[in-house]
Amino acid sequence: MTADTRFLQVAQELGHDFSGEIKIGGHYVPVLQDGQQLFVSGQIPRVGDEVFFVGTLGDTFDVAKGQQAAAICAMRALALLQRALGSLDAVGAILRITVYVRSAPAFTQQSEVADGASDVLCRVLGSRGVHTRTSVGVLQLPKGAAVELDLIATALPTESRL
Amino acid sequence: MTADTRFLQVAQELGHDFSGEIKIGGHYVPVLQDGQQLFVSGQIPRVGDEVFFVGTLGDTFDVAKGQQAAAICAMRALALLQRALGSLDAVGAILRITVYVRSAPAFTQQSEVADGASDVLCRVLGSRGVHTRTSVGVLQLPKGAAVELDLIATALPTESRL
Amino acid sequence: MTADTRFLQVAQELGHDFSGEIKIGGHYVPVLQDGQQLFVSGQIPRVGDEVFFVGTLGDTFDVAKGQQAAAICAMRALALLQRALGSLDAVGAILRITVYVRSAPAFTQQSEVADGASDVLCRVLGSRGVHTRTSVGVLQLPKGAAVELDLIATALPTESRL
Repeated sequence: MTADTRFLQVAQELGHDFSGEIKIGGHYVPVLQDGQQLFVSGQIPRVGDEVFFVGTLGDTFDVAKGQQAAAICAMRALALLQRALGSLDAVGAILRITVYVRSAPAFTQQSEVADGASDVLCRVLGSRGVHTRTSVGVLQLPKGAAVELDLIATALPTESRL
Repeated sequence: MTADTRFLQVAQELGHDFSGEIKIGGHYVPVLQDGQQLFVSGQIPRVGDEVFFVGTLGDTFDVAKGQQAAAICAMRALALLQRALGSLDAVGAILRITVYVRSAPAFTQQSEVADGASDVLCRVLGSRGVHTRTSVGVLQLPKGAAVELDLIATALPTESRL
Repeated sequence: MTADTRFLQVAQELGHDFSGEIKIGGHYVPVLQDGQQLFVSGQIPRVGDEVFFVGTLGDTFDVAKGQQAAAICAMRALALLQRALGSLDAVGAILRITVYVRSAPAFTQQSEVADGASDVLCRVLGSRGVHTRTSVGVLQLPKGAAVELDLIATALPTESRL
């Protein structure tokens, strides 16, 4: 099964369609490639025009909801890599994800929330989805989103793709 | 017109002179090059000895002021790239900027604030200034600054420079 | 004196033993290498099963304590590089560290806290430990830790190692 097929499976489970335009909210680009490295801009759990999960972990949302929000952020990042490379099977590695969790003052489970993103990356990309990670608790995020995620990935060398 | 000339134009519009020492506040270096990649340390809106824009977005400052603060951070980063490479015309690309916005609890326009930095990068560097971006709302920043920005850039290969 | 010996000296001064398992708290890996670059996941001041320095800078802890917390984070990152490369003498450069400081609302000395990490990197790695840095003040961190640090490093090319 290809990574692109697994991507569609996860999208269906989440109940979201990531085939539309991936909108961004400012004067920048969603993804940029430098040699084999790809940088993906900070993604909030927006699908189409709607931002899902507006609120605070430990207050509006519990860990399970935060994991769903993180999963949508990760799916957006994957959708951007897919468009940049033609297929998710062309992803070589996910080097680093940073997960910003909008947190109530006493909420300390940022790492558990970030697992929602990590699980998506590993499910879709298999061993190529294994990554390093930083998760922190922030006061606010653009549009009041509960989670924001950015990442650095690599592309497989063209000659080594199937 | 060279990128260095456009840099001076933007500096004049902002009313700041970036030709002096770029001071930093700790035991690290402002810029480091690894192959073609350059890493620039987190920049606050300091010019010379003075930190401008000490305060909070959504409280002390509105979005327009936050954009000015972000613009100064971006100019400092450009000044550092200029000194490292000899000229801003040697910059190949801006791969990633991360913009930390010191935010009041209800302030959610971090992305709009970050546009102040993005616009400077694009004005000075043209198409080479297009970048990926992450903006988040944090509780505090060094010296109480309203905005902090770091970035990763690339240098043009020496043989391809004008 | 090798970097590995200096690492042991600093560990002894800090009163911690970094030879055990470096536990992480989620579905990711602590370190990943891409070519010459190594990405290290966000490290909190945990040694073995215990998280030291749970609390807030400017409230629970003063700058000196924050520097100790940052030093432990840096030592964990070094321990991970050591295991990945076999020896800290194989580290080529520390390109970037990001230091997240859990801060009370009025605490603005994030940079001073981060110096605790910077000093460890320079002491252990010498001139190869010089780095770029971003430090920010965040509302919360995983497990309530006072400091979190991640970094990007390079490995020396195999042929240039001693």
